[in-house]
This record gives sequence, C-alpha cells and structure tokens, in this order.
Amino acid sequence: MKNKKINIRKKLSKFNDHWNPKVVAEMNDYQFKLAKISGEFIWHQHKSTDEVFYVVEGKMIIEFRDGKVELSKGEMFVVPKGVEHKPYAEKECHIMLIEQRGVLNTGEVKNELTAINDNWI
Amino acid sequence: MKNKKINIRKKLSKFNDHWNPKVVAEMNDYQFKLAKISGEFIWHQHKSTDEVFYVVEGKMIIEFRDGKVELSKGEMFVVPKGVEHKPYAEKECHIMLIEQRGVLNTGEVKNELTAINDNWI
Repeated sequence: MKNKKINIRKKLSKFNDHWNPKVVAEMNDYQFKLAKISGEFIWHQHKSTDEVFYVVEGKMIIEFRDGKVELSKGEMFVVPKGVEHKPYAEKECHIMLIEQRGVLNTGEVKNELTAINDNWI
Repeated sequence: MKNKKINIRKKLSKFNDHWNPKVVAEMNDYQFKLAKISGEFIWHQHKSTDEVFYVVEGKMIIEFRDGKVELSKGEMFVVPKGVEHKPYAEKECHIMLIEQRGVLNTGEVKNELTAINDNWI
C-alpha cells in the first residue's frame, strides 16, 4: 500500500501541455485527472455524467449558456450532466477533474482539442 | 449556475467536530465530504467501494494491516474496496473524502463513531 500515494503538485510538475488531462487515480469506475489549462476551450457537454472541476492553482472560468462561474484555488464546481459549458483561463490554471472513466474532454464534440483518453501520469 | 461553487476552506470553517464528515457536493451517485480528524479512528473496511482521501490541511496516517501511508497537504490516496484501514492524525487534520452516496464512515462497523450519513453543510 505504501507507495500509492498521489502528490498533486509533483504530478503537475511532470507535464506542461494544455487542455490534455492526465489520469492520476482511479476510484471504482471514476478517474481523477490533472490538467493545465490556458485560454479558451470549446463549448461541449457530457450527456451521461456530471463532471467535477477543482482548482489546484490559479483561476478559471466556466461559461454556461445562462451565466458563468469563476473558480479560484481551493474551489470546486459540479457541472451537471447535459449542461453545455466552456472552460477558460486568462492565465495558466491547474485543475483536477473528476469524472467517469471513458469521458472525453470535449464531450460530444471531436476535434483537434479532443485528448487521448486514459492517459496516466 | 452561478452560486453553486464550493469553497473548501469556507466550508471547513463552518464546523469543528471531529470524525463527522459533511457532504459539500454530489457528482452522479458519489459524494464529496469534508472532515476534521484528530486522534485515532477504528479499523474498518468498505466492502463494495473504493474510498478516496485527500488532505486539505495538515497530516494524516492511514494504517493498513501490512503497513501505513502518511499523507500531507495536497496528497491523496485511494483505499481499495475491501481493504481494512485505520485513519489517524496526531494533530488536527482537514480532509476531503470522495465515496459513493450511502457509504458509512465506519464501514461494516456501527458504533459511537458512526456518523449520520448524508449530512450536508
């Protein structure tokens, strides 16, 4: 058991690319993913699952069709399933995502921002 | 959407009891719970689900039958389902737990440490 602890900051120091979530832990069929984000993502939704955003460092905004929420370090937000959202960050922001295994970062959209899934670090 | 963000530190400032997890968010059928812990808990297990510990402030130890792991601020650990564990903290420690809705803090044991479930803050 000893060596399975996960240090969030150490894991974050291992990559620098943006909008490319890395899996760091699994709980049943859910995954904890770390990502560095900067600039704008795309509008998308996840039809079958809620998605949790937790800010480790910096600030991010999640836009919704009816408003937006600004999240700072130590704040989290649950985006309900089926709700369209567009994350963005003015400056680089480090986040943890918690969602079901198999969820794509771009939801129902597939484009050049769609990250490889199940990418462990 | 605007007002549903969760500030972990603000939530933690709202209670002072130990070993009594408070729900702050729900994602599908999983819950995010905050707890302040101090001293020793009991040996227990969760037969049907993994459980995540994330340290927000301080240090804690999770003992297993074959060893132990020490977790500091910013570190997390997934206790696999069915693995006996005993959390403890020498000094007060603030943690976030992520587990399925309905999971009891004392697992298969029920005693005076068994917290009321689904206790939102």
